Amino acid sequence: MKKAVCLLSGGMDSTTLAYVAKDIGYEILALHTRYGQRTEKKEAECARKVASLLGAVEFTEISLSHLLAFGGSSLIDKGMEVHDHEDLGEGIPNTYVPFRNSNLLSIATSYAEARGAEAIFIGVQASDYAGYPDCRPEFVEAFQHVIDLGTSDDTNITLMTPFVNLNKTEIVRRGIELGVPYEHTWSCYRSNGPACGNCDSCYYRLEAFKANGIPDPIEYE
Amino acid sequence: MKKAVCLLSGGMDSTTLAYVAKDIGYEILALHTRYGQRTEKKEAECARKVASLLGAVEFTEISLSHLLAFGGSSLIDKGMEVHDHEDLGEGIPNTYVPFRNSNLLSIATSYAEARGAEAIFIGVQASDYAGYPDCRPEFVEAFQHVIDLGTSDDTNITLMTPFVNLNKTEIVRRGIELGVPYEHTWSCYRSNGPACGNCDSCYYRLEAFKANGIPDPIEYE
Repeated sequence: MKKAVCLLSGGMDSTTLAYVAKDIGYEILALHTRYGQRTEKKEAECARKVASLLGAVEFTEISLSHLLAFGGSSLIDKGMEVHDHEDLGEGIPNTYVPFRNSNLLSIATSYAEARGAEAIFIGVQASDYAGYPDCRPEFVEAFQHVIDLGTSDDTNITLMTPFVNLNKTEIVRRGIELGVPYEHTWSCYRSNGPACGNCDSCYYRLEAFKANGIPDPIEYE
Repeated sequence: MKKAVCLLSGGMDSTTLAYVAKDIGYEILALHTRYGQRTEKKEAECARKVASLLGAVEFTEISLSHLLAFGGSSLIDKGMEVHDHEDLGEGIPNTYVPFRNSNLLSIATSYAEARGAEAIFIGVQASDYAGYPDCRPEFVEAFQHVIDLGTSDDTNITLMTPFVNLNKTEIVRRGIELGVPYEHTWSCYRSNGPACGNCDSCYYRLEAFKANGIPDPIEYE
């Protein structure tokens, strides 16, 4: 059976993505990373639960303490404020963690190469890459080129980004079809529970459920 | 003063490189990583000492336990044998750590972006990229593209590889001119001391000193 590394943050997109990968027929190597973000405890719990429900053959949890040490993001630096969605201006939000996705994809590629997996699933999608440079389709394409050049010649690993042209509403629609347990996913940037409902991440999540006409099963303040 | 992140492994090449970066006029942020390699203790000691002698403004040490967990390399897997230089065949040596340099460059870029550094120095060079895919000049160029796309638009970080066309003999020659303290560098793949003298890394190091007509100051078996 062909194997895929799935970057599983514990959020809505990556959880849906792991179900898509399984639906396509991959054996799942779930890879969760924590890097000192405010909600790392809750996200890790969700990722672990989802990997188990999904029947992932491995669940690997990695701590990237260096991203916390370097700082520069309100997700990890308690001295910086996570803004409400309505207070966000133009440009890159301060929740951007410098070059995080390249760190995640590098780890995922090492994992995939060591295990002989042929795909890596990452849940980058349209509404993210408006703000985050390391979610752009061009970034993912450039990283694919790095993988092709930087691994053994007999290694073939494809970055899979089935959500790259979907918005959150379409992702949730797909997830509902696949029976994704959204009660075990976490999106809030601020709190390990209940969710704040006002940060950018809560805002887009709530909009997506609303547009699908179903209630979000997690608890809000 | 302009700042540069220098990947400082504790080896001969990266140490010389840090002295070159200082000579060019950069303030040095030294970045050392350990990942469970057999000689990590000795390499960390050397890197720390060199950073201090060099007057690096920061020395950051990061543990990448995931590379050890993934395995797949004789540098980290005690169940695999590190071959003598003379027993190496064609192809990628089993000392290759899957996609290691992409992990290192990702961390270095996060560090550089968070600190406002404008350069990253990495000591890839000619005799390595014969064997290791993630030392090829094309790999470094592809990673530069990932940096350009995956960081903030107002971030400009250049990967600096002044050794990419030099061999080890030329690197040591440059190091001697710059007064590099080679007694505080470590190359052996096998032992924390004395060095074995027979692995691929010891072989090339000894050849480089011999070609320069000076003794290698470290102790061999």
